[in-house]
Amino acid sequence: MDDFVFRNPTKIIFGKGKEKSVGKEALAYGCRVLLHYGGGSIKKTGLYKTVITSLKEAGIEVTELGGVKPNPRVSLVREAVELCREKRIDLILAVGGGSVIDSAKAISVGVPYEGDVWDFYSGKAAAETALPVAVILTLPAAGSESSDGSVITNEEGMLKRPYGSSLLYPVFSILNPELAFTLPKFQIACGIADMMAHVLERYFTNSKPVGLSDRLLEGTMKNIVDYAQSVLINQEDYNSWAEIMWSGTLAHNNLFGVDRENDWASHDIEHELSGIYDIAHGAGLAVIFPAWMKYNYRQDIDRFAQWAVRVWNVEEDFWSREKTALAGIQKFEDFLRSLGLATTLEGVGIDESRLEEMADKCTNGDTITKGGFVKLNKDDVLNILRLAL
Amino acid sequence: MDDFVFRNPTKIIFGKGKEKSVGKEALAYGCRVLLHYGGGSIKKTGLYKTVITSLKEAGIEVTELGGVKPNPRVSLVREAVELCREKRIDLILAVGGGSVIDSAKAISVGVPYEGDVWDFYSGKAAAETALPVAVILTLPAAGSESSDGSVITNEEGMLKRPYGSSLLYPVFSILNPELAFTLPKFQIACGIADMMAHVLERYFTNSKPVGLSDRLLEGTMKNIVDYAQSVLINQEDYNSWAEIMWSGTLAHNNLFGVDRENDWASHDIEHELSGIYDIAHGAGLAVIFPAWMKYNYRQDIDRFAQWAVRVWNVEEDFWSREKTALAGIQKFEDFLRSLGLATTLEGVGIDESRLEEMADKCTNGDTITKGGFVKLNKDDVLNILRLAL
Repeated sequence: MDDFVFRNPTKIIFGKGKEKSVGKEALAYGCRVLLHYGGGSIKKTGLYKTVITSLKEAGIEVTELGGVKPNPRVSLVREAVELCREKRIDLILAVGGGSVIDSAKAISVGVPYEGDVWDFYSGKAAAETALPVAVILTLPAAGSESSDGSVITNEEGMLKRPYGSSLLYPVFSILNPELAFTLPKFQIACGIADMMAHVLERYFTNSKPVGLSDRLLEGTMKNIVDYAQSVLINQEDYNSWAEIMWSGTLAHNNLFGVDRENDWASHDIEHELSGIYDIAHGAGLAVIFPAWMKYNYRQDIDRFAQWAVRVWNVEEDFWSREKTALAGIQKFEDFLRSLGLATTLEGVGIDESRLEEMADKCTNGDTITKGGFVKLNKDDVLNILRLAL
Repeated sequence: MDDFVFRNPTKIIFGKGKEKSVGKEALAYGCRVLLHYGGGSIKKTGLYKTVITSLKEAGIEVTELGGVKPNPRVSLVREAVELCREKRIDLILAVGGGSVIDSAKAISVGVPYEGDVWDFYSGKAAAETALPVAVILTLPAAGSESSDGSVITNEEGMLKRPYGSSLLYPVFSILNPELAFTLPKFQIACGIADMMAHVLERYFTNSKPVGLSDRLLEGTMKNIVDYAQSVLINQEDYNSWAEIMWSGTLAHNNLFGVDRENDWASHDIEHELSGIYDIAHGAGLAVIFPAWMKYNYRQDIDRFAQWAVRVWNVEEDFWSREKTALAGIQKFEDFLRSLGLATTLEGVGIDESRLEEMADKCTNGDTITKGGFVKLNKDDVLNILRLAL
């Protein structure tokens, strides 16, 4: 087990109707709130009205900024930074999924910073202070509601880059599974692929032994598989949504991956896909992860075999560990397809024309490697992309 | 899944030699520290010197109070409260296991409180503020290093009572598995029984569905079973100790039990045993829990069968779910015995003479019930104690 430091201060408020208490919760952080959201679906569902009512009843002055797009843009973040300064905002309330939360997190470090907020994402600066961010989650997927990370896209060059800091943990996150009832099926499927990927990025490791975190990660994957079909078939099944939503949060609050080397190459490769083609992150992961597995499973066939047996109930082939491992990868790919997701680049409308460009961008012109479990150079990334065609 | 609020702010610092950084960590809370410890084993092992050196190098003024006994006494807590006031202590540093940590937590709420600290444990008062508590853990067992609970014994009437408050989460806890290398085997075994009990108190529930927390609790139990023998046989096996120590912490930080009704009757019954007979808490739990199971498994045979199959690898008897359930209980009892623990009252030196008195105290003269999964009155508690003879 690796040494680690872990502290996740986010207060999770979980259950039916909990968004109604947002005003009371928010007031602890001040009386000027930026309400940050996406394309306006919260107005259709009535959530917007509930939130505004709760905030106003608490005596909070609300400034609004909607319009966050999937793969959230740095241009909107910059606009929001100026707005927060002008309005002397105390708390940024993100109402939405990962894109809205990540946009809010970028704003939170941008406001007190003298330079340009992209400096954090380009590796030029580290945040020293931040405005508090709070969340009402509408899309179980990214896990950003209790993570220390954020991913932003810079339209200049379509660069999609992550930034992590303990300052980015939300101060509180409200999780009401009912808010997921109205999601389109495709978004649900992408969300499930994303949370599975968060577990897998931690699961494939060279750290040994990692008995407890293996069990916890396996349990989380099994539970996602157990309830995925239920939420796709009966979208108003509260209990199944509760299982999926809580799984998505724990998949990425980092408790289960803190004692082990993580990988994260699949996320980095996917960021090039959604950066250039603007596809949904989860849809990109469903393409990249199976290819990444096929390219890398020989790094630790025992680990892949354990995963196949424990998570996918593959019956062990005692004369061929490799067959056991490969059967697990097959089951994972079958699972992704059962959600209605494509597992090839062709299936998400990407041809081979820009693979080289993506591999180059991902490895910064072959000057850096990606991944922890297996270190990938530009050629490796290109091979994985080709395997995914 | 039940509604919940969860926030665990304890910073976990895990790894070899991490106790050397205690001075730097402590300084963030002030420069006057009460060093609280037990019977002096930390002086034999050299830990005392390491801690004092680190604190002094950070410029911290140290006040010492050792002498915490297993089943920590309110009299010492009262003494410490006076001492902290006199020395204007900023932070209480507990170096030890659950008894020392629980004593430190009681002191922490006692110092700013005008009345007697026992008021919290007798249910007469709720804490409104507390001094910060920090921990260097030497005995993986109680989970108090990242829990919001504390258990104290009042010598008048030998009452052992719990108190819980979010104010009781330690601000930081240093977990170095090396510090467990010198523990006596009996203490190791009691610690393992205690952490298993913390998982079981959460596992047996009427809340439905609890898919994710079932998986996480099962994974924690499986991991404790996987590594228990290793730490008993080879006490200097760092990696096995790391697994046991981290399991013990997660068994009781409440993340895995927050979405479900818990039970806790076995703990309450055991408190009467160790309150009156001053036996080790883990030793008492190894006696009470199997008896509690035999008395209550009919409440939900499906749940006991799931536990038997998933945790104990019992092969399901498809024609008798009860047989499957009972086979799990048998495996659990076998496991406790394999640690060298007794699973009968006789084995811990308790005869039938005071069973009635214990059942009466536990249920406050049959005026309250105990437990969440099954509600137990005085007769039920007495029946469980008789089953354990």
